[in-house]
Formats: sequence, structure tokens, C-alpha cells
Amino acid sequence: MSKKLTKRSEDYSKWYNELVVRAGLAENSGIRGMMVIKPYGYAIWEKMQAQLDKMFKDTGHQNAYFPLLIPKSYFSKEAKHVEGFAKEAAIVTHYRLRATADGKGVEVDPNAKLEEELIIRPTSETIIWDTYKRWIQSYRDLPILVNQWANVMRWEMRTRLFLRTAEFLWQEGHTAHETRDEAVKEAEKMLHVYADFAENFMAMPVIKGVKSESERFAGAEDTYTIEALMQDGKALQSGTSHFLGQNFAKAFDVKFLSREGKLEYVWATSWGVSTRLMGALIMTHSDDNGLVLPPKLAPIQVVIIPIYRKDEQLKQISEKVDEIVKKLKAKGISVKYDDSDNYKPGWKFNEYELKGVPVRLAIGPRDLENGTVEVARRDTLTKEIVPMEGVDAYIENLLTDIQKNLFEKARKYRDEHITQVDNFDDFKKVLEEKGGFISAPWDGTPETEEKIKELTKATIRCIPLNNPTEEGTDMISGKPSKQRVLFAKAY
Amino acid sequence: MSKKLTKRSEDYSKWYNELVVRAGLAENSGIRGMMVIKPYGYAIWEKMQAQLDKMFKDTGHQNAYFPLLIPKSYFSKEAKHVEGFAKEAAIVTHYRLRATADGKGVEVDPNAKLEEELIIRPTSETIIWDTYKRWIQSYRDLPILVNQWANVMRWEMRTRLFLRTAEFLWQEGHTAHETRDEAVKEAEKMLHVYADFAENFMAMPVIKGVKSESERFAGAEDTYTIEALMQDGKALQSGTSHFLGQNFAKAFDVKFLSREGKLEYVWATSWGVSTRLMGALIMTHSDDNGLVLPPKLAPIQVVIIPIYRKDEQLKQISEKVDEIVKKLKAKGISVKYDDSDNYKPGWKFNEYELKGVPVRLAIGPRDLENGTVEVARRDTLTKEIVPMEGVDAYIENLLTDIQKNLFEKARKYRDEHITQVDNFDDFKKVLEEKGGFISAPWDGTPETEEKIKELTKATIRCIPLNNPTEEGTDMISGKPSKQRVLFAKAY
Repeated sequence: MSKKLTKRSEDYSKWYNELVVRAGLAENSGIRGMMVIKPYGYAIWEKMQAQLDKMFKDTGHQNAYFPLLIPKSYFSKEAKHVEGFAKEAAIVTHYRLRATADGKGVEVDPNAKLEEELIIRPTSETIIWDTYKRWIQSYRDLPILVNQWANVMRWEMRTRLFLRTAEFLWQEGHTAHETRDEAVKEAEKMLHVYADFAENFMAMPVIKGVKSESERFAGAEDTYTIEALMQDGKALQSGTSHFLGQNFAKAFDVKFLSREGKLEYVWATSWGVSTRLMGALIMTHSDDNGLVLPPKLAPIQVVIIPIYRKDEQLKQISEKVDEIVKKLKAKGISVKYDDSDNYKPGWKFNEYELKGVPVRLAIGPRDLENGTVEVARRDTLTKEIVPMEGVDAYIENLLTDIQKNLFEKARKYRDEHITQVDNFDDFKKVLEEKGGFISAPWDGTPETEEKIKELTKATIRCIPLNNPTEEGTDMISGKPSKQRVLFAKAY
Repeated sequence: MSKKLTKRSEDYSKWYNELVVRAGLAENSGIRGMMVIKPYGYAIWEKMQAQLDKMFKDTGHQNAYFPLLIPKSYFSKEAKHVEGFAKEAAIVTHYRLRATADGKGVEVDPNAKLEEELIIRPTSETIIWDTYKRWIQSYRDLPILVNQWANVMRWEMRTRLFLRTAEFLWQEGHTAHETRDEAVKEAEKMLHVYADFAENFMAMPVIKGVKSESERFAGAEDTYTIEALMQDGKALQSGTSHFLGQNFAKAFDVKFLSREGKLEYVWATSWGVSTRLMGALIMTHSDDNGLVLPPKLAPIQVVIIPIYRKDEQLKQISEKVDEIVKKLKAKGISVKYDDSDNYKPGWKFNEYELKGVPVRLAIGPRDLENGTVEVARRDTLTKEIVPMEGVDAYIENLLTDIQKNLFEKARKYRDEHITQVDNFDDFKKVLEEKGGFISAPWDGTPETEEKIKELTKATIRCIPLNNPTEEGTDMISGKPSKQRVLFAKAY
């Protein structure tokens, strides 16, 4: 790392972009809106995937894989879905290239036009319900609890690494049930799984809630969401779980013979999180020195750097380090010993700080004499000299402590940024000066919601689960409001 | 399972298709040439992925992710590559749909035409080397050892589940090196990794070799391959590793400052295996009763089925089974207890046989009295009564034994189906009557190779590694041959 990152206070957006690239997480490719996820970034995503996949399987789900390309006509089958998803999409129209007349390049072969265009999946409800029609005859075939890890494509005009890209990676769960009640419970269950993952692995506090009608997934009867707050006061929708009612079953004519011997439409859910979570992770914890990673998702949890002048010293240090590495690995802690001689320790310190490695050990000749080691923690940027003896147990506790501290810090920030307001002047003032979530009365109409969005760019992020009723007055319409809802500007 | 599978001896191809669908591995989707990988099939693929991924990481590789869509012009940069890969491909030409005039459907918006068409990746050399250009300046940036797990698309006209589908899943390693020697070693190393995986996990013997020029990957200087033999006497190319020379570095202008301070082109490899391995796995071991899985890749290694009349009996059996399950899980063995009352034991026996579960335990009231359990192995279809006491250790050994037995059986078959011939009449006779690999002299020219392919459909599968030299006469041209090579009809 040659020069410092732009400071968050100077330009948050620039800081984010620089950090993503320089920490080796992702970069723009030569194709508009499509990113390359670099090895270090992908390693974090793999840790997320592994944990989520375990949680899905622990709740009874299995993985499967469905086609990338979906016939255009499938989208027209569900009226709302087509509006939401069949617009900005990548469309395959031909299946062959041929050499150009000059022999120097290739061009689309006009004779190889598809009868029906195929859309690169923006989400897979349609192709999956087309498949479920073949899988479901009777209640004995239910529930179907299937998840897919896949790439999807939405032709976004304004893109930002991880947060909004034309292609992104995600998982999409698609379940089929006998009853409304069972499907609603499934949608709620997966919301809790997402919240558990966000809070206990990403160390990112979230508010669980339900979306207003206009923010719902296209084709859903209800969309549940987890909403997180970024350091710049903007909200980030981090995961959604949809109760789809019988909409897709009706669109694709999927009926089952019920226990009562009647033909009924199947009930459905879908739920997903994506590489967007990488953006959420970065913006929840990182600082002006670079990435800050919660230990549970850090590809490297501990880095050890030798401080030496002579080769003889390096040799002695390395012997000690080998012992420490062995002990740490035995505890399941991932550790990297960076004894490369390309770079000086100072450079390495900066580099691993930039990459968000939770704990750094430095060992020099004096440490060998004294039986000590320098331990630096990334979250607080503090250092301590601790005895070499038992340093593995010390680090194990420290990692737990860092994980907890990151969550608490983020929760404190989030809680301080939920502001109650009762009139639109205060609303605008808080939105402008403080940011964060604003808890305000709402008359429940899309008109008011739209008006607020138009005037301030803030949207209703969610109606929190178990929201208390509270008599109030809508800020815009002056009509009665039965509860407060959470507004925010959002990514 | 209501009716029996078609027998292999009746119609091998029909047997394969029926097995794939009825064992719950995959099925055709509503889109031509694209398959749905069903949960049970995907679970096997996940086991393959997990093991391969571990082997890649153990050999120093990291995962990353590159864009799905590649600009058309990228393909024209490497002359041979464009011929091999830019022809039958899915081509994205537009990025928006709009409502039709009658409001009932959607159509491609002619105003949303891309300036340059994008190709769904058939393989990623071009987009990756376009990226590596940004990553590589000096020898310090080398080697790059990166792998990608991804979906790819090749517009195949004749498709078969797993073996040849328009979309398939695979991994593609792409490495960059300072020297020719290092790149060649990498390509060879990954060939050995593939062979190790095939033999020790899939229990599928393979011949390691190098491809003749006409069978090489488009853009490679050498293609290494592992070739397996299916039960119908046809070969199946199961994995390839390519030494790409400096071809892609030259096409994308990727140079590095060498240790000697000179600007040089980077050396490259790429290597991949795909969901085709599922087809190979199925056709290597399975029988007329269904799938046969090697224990190391079986999602369920042991199934336990209770045999009972009365609920009281089931209760007693279940108590015993709980103990066994606990002990098996402690040994890392995956086990399913199927006490569902939807189906009779006989139905379950057939079903788990169809699904290839390596070991089946059946426990009835008499077993409880005698302290025994019936153990059936899928590979030999034999049964034994063994003492309940210590059955976990018994099964652990049995799984090892089954894994070994499957490999030995397949190796014996393969070895018996390598036939040496010296003239074209014998060649045709063996090919027709016996099948398998034919070891025959070859003059080394593409003309002879082409002639044989034209006349018999057999191709040179490989020139085995460390092939002995042997003076001989080419079967077609009558010219001198310096070594035997392996011919076969292939999938």
C-alpha cells in the first residue's frame, strides 16, 4: 500500500470504492456493470456461503440447480412479476457467431435467431415453478425445501462494486407448501436465519420487519426484510424473504391433491441474500485504515510478522512462530506467517490492516529474550505485549472479544441513529443532518409513501416485526396513523 | 419405484436416461438442452466440489469470480480460440424488454440494442487474461493460481443429461507463470490432481495422457487428459489440463518485468472438470437396479430401514437404531433412518438401491431378540447377518471395502478392454465386437487420425504419459510409427 485511503469524512463513496479495490476484494471488469471478485474478496464470500449453507441445511433445505436462461414468455405468466423483473434484463436472441467476410473477426449469424428469446435469470421463480409443476402431484410431495446458489443478472444502469452490479452472486430459496400457514412460517423462519447470520457472523445488527406494499417483491403477498445501517447513515436492505401466496402456483398451474382429496394450489416462499452482503460487511465495520473483518468471516484471522535484522534472528523467530502456528491451528484458528522478505514490517502492518485481519502478532529479538509477543487488534487499533506462553488461549479469547466488540459498536451506532419524529420539518432536518432510521407515523397509503420518497429520497425500509400500535398523525396527509414505521435513505 | 429400469444389455442409452431421472439426479427443463440438477444429484456434485476444492487449495490455488458475459471482440484476439469457442454460443444482443402493444406480453425493445454483443462464457480464458493484464506487472505478481467455480454455456445441438448440455457447471483453473517450465509443471500437476480425484474418490480408473494436435483445446500448446472407460466400451474424457504457452498473454498483451529486468510474455495454463463427471460416475459403476455410488461421494452412506408390524416393535427398533446412528455419526459416516410409514420395506429397499446408497441395514423384531442386524451392500448386492454389537466398526470397514472393490472392479474391466492391434481389419473388428481402448501404431499425422475417425468414429483418446517408443507401421498410411496410441469411440 503506497498511499492512504481517502477518509470517510471526506468522501464516503470514494473511500468505499478505493477500499474495495485496494484491499483486493473486487474491481470493475472491462464489461459495463460487471465486477471481478478477486481472491481475497471471494474468500470472504466463501466463508459467508459456507455458514449460510450450513444454516439452510440445518433447517431442512437441500440445494439444486436450475437453468440460467428463461424463455421470455415465462415472465408474462405472473402479472406483477413481469413488471418487476422482465424489463432491464440481458436478452439472448441468437445462438451462433460466424466469421466476418474479411475473415478478421466474428459476427452474429442472422440465420441463428432463436424462435423465442431467452432471458438471463434476474431471479428464478418462473423457471422453478415451471419445474415444480412436474414435481408436485400430492401432499406427499410437499414441502419442497430447495435452495440454489447461482449468478443472476439485472441490467442496472448505475452500478457500484458489490452493492449494485449487473451480474451478482446469490442464493435463492424456493419452497412449496400445503398450507398458507406453513408457507408464512417458512418465510419468517428464513428471515430469522438471515438475522442470525447477520448479527452473529457478520456482527451486523439488523432490524427485522415487513415491507410496505410498494417495496414488496414483484409477485409476493408479503416481503420480510432485514435492514442494516451503514456508517454514513444510509440503510441497506440485507436480505429478504417472501411469502408468495399462491401467485406462482396459479401462474404455472401447480396443484396438489390435498389430504382431504381436493385439488389445491400450492403455497410458496422465496428468499435470498447476495454478494451485496459484502458491501454491507465493509460499510458496517471498516475505517480509514481499511477493511475491518469480524473474526468469524476473516479468511486470515491472525497474521504473524517477524521483526529482524539478521537471518539468524529470523531463524530463531521462525522456530518460535512454528510452535505458535501449530497451537493456533489446533484451536481451529486460521493463521498466516508472513516471513517474505520483499517488504519491510511497516509495509506489512499497513497491508494487513488494509485487509482487515483481526489480530496481528509481531515478534522480534527482544520478544524472544523476554518470552513475549506484541499483539495488535484491528478493531481498536490497540497493541499489547503479552507472554508468549499461553498466547494461543489469549488469542482465542481475543477473537471472541473482537467479534463481540464489533457487533456492540455497530449496534450502539445503529441505536443512536433511530430517531423518532412526528412532523415533516423534523423529518427532513433529521434526514439531512443526522441520517439513520427515522421512526415516524404513517397513514398506511402508498400515496404518502410516494410523496415522501419524491421529496426526500427516503423510503419506508420496514414496518418492524411486533411493531406496537400507536395513535398518531401522518406527516404528509394529516390522516390518522396507527403505528410508526422506519424511514431512511437507502442503498 | 414402480417399474424396473431398462436393462443395460437391452439399451444402454435408455438405461442411462431412465436412471438419471428416476434416481433423482437430473431432468430436462422446458428449455432445449438445459437441465435441472435435482437435489440428490446436486448433493453428489457438492461432494465432488468439496473434495476438488480442497485439493485445489492444498496445491496453493485460490478461488475468484469473473463475469458471465464476454464481449464478442475478446474471442477474436486468439486465432484458434475463436474457431473453437466463438461459434455455437448464446449471444446477448439486447438489454431491455417492453410491454407488447396489446399489453398481454413482453417483447424485446429494439431501442435497447447493445453496441457490442456479449457472449455467455463457453470458457473464460479471454475475460480472465483481459483481467490478468491489470494484475501482472512484475515477476513479483507471479504465479497467479486462481480457480473459478461457474456455469458455462455451449450451444450443443444433441444434448444428454450431464454428458452434454448447453449449460453446465464446472471449475476452471487459470494460472500465470514466469517460465515455460513452471507452467508445464502446473498443467501436469493438475492432471495428477484430477487423476487422484477420479481414482481415489470416484473409484474410477483413468489413463493419463496427452492429446493429439487435432484434439487439443483451442488455443493450447498441449492438452493433458484423463480418459475413463464406460461400461458400454466407450471412452469418456473426464478432465483436461492445458499448457497454453504464451498464446493468451500475446493475445491480451500481458507482459511482466522479469528477474533479469526484461519485459516478457507470461506463460499460462488452464484446467477444468465439469458436471460431466456425474455422467462418468454413473456409467462407471451403476447396474440394472440403479445407481451405485462409491462411499466417498455418497450423500447418504448408510440407510437403516425398520421391519415391523406393530408400533410397539417400531419403538423398540428405533431405540436400538438411535444408538447405532449416534455411533456411525461419531465416525463421520452419514446415515439416514427411514422410519416413514408411507411405504413398505420392500419399496424402500428398491428405492435406496435405485439411489445407490452403499450400505443398507434392516432391523426387525427377530434381530432385536438375537442382537443382530442385516447388512446389505449395494456394490455386490449381497446380504449378511452381523452382530449389533460393534456394527459401527463393521460398517466403517465395509465402506472402505466397497470403495476399494468398486475401483478394482472398474479397473479390471478397463484393463480387459485395452486391446493391442496392428492392422486396420483387427482394429475395426475389436471396435465393433469388443469396444474399449485400442492400442495401435500411429504415424503421428492428423491425416491418418482424420481418416480413422471418418471410417470408424473412433478418435485418438490420448498418447499415454511415459508412453514407450515402439517401432511399428501405421494401420492406414503404412508409414513408420514410433509409438502406440489409444483409440476409442468416445462420449
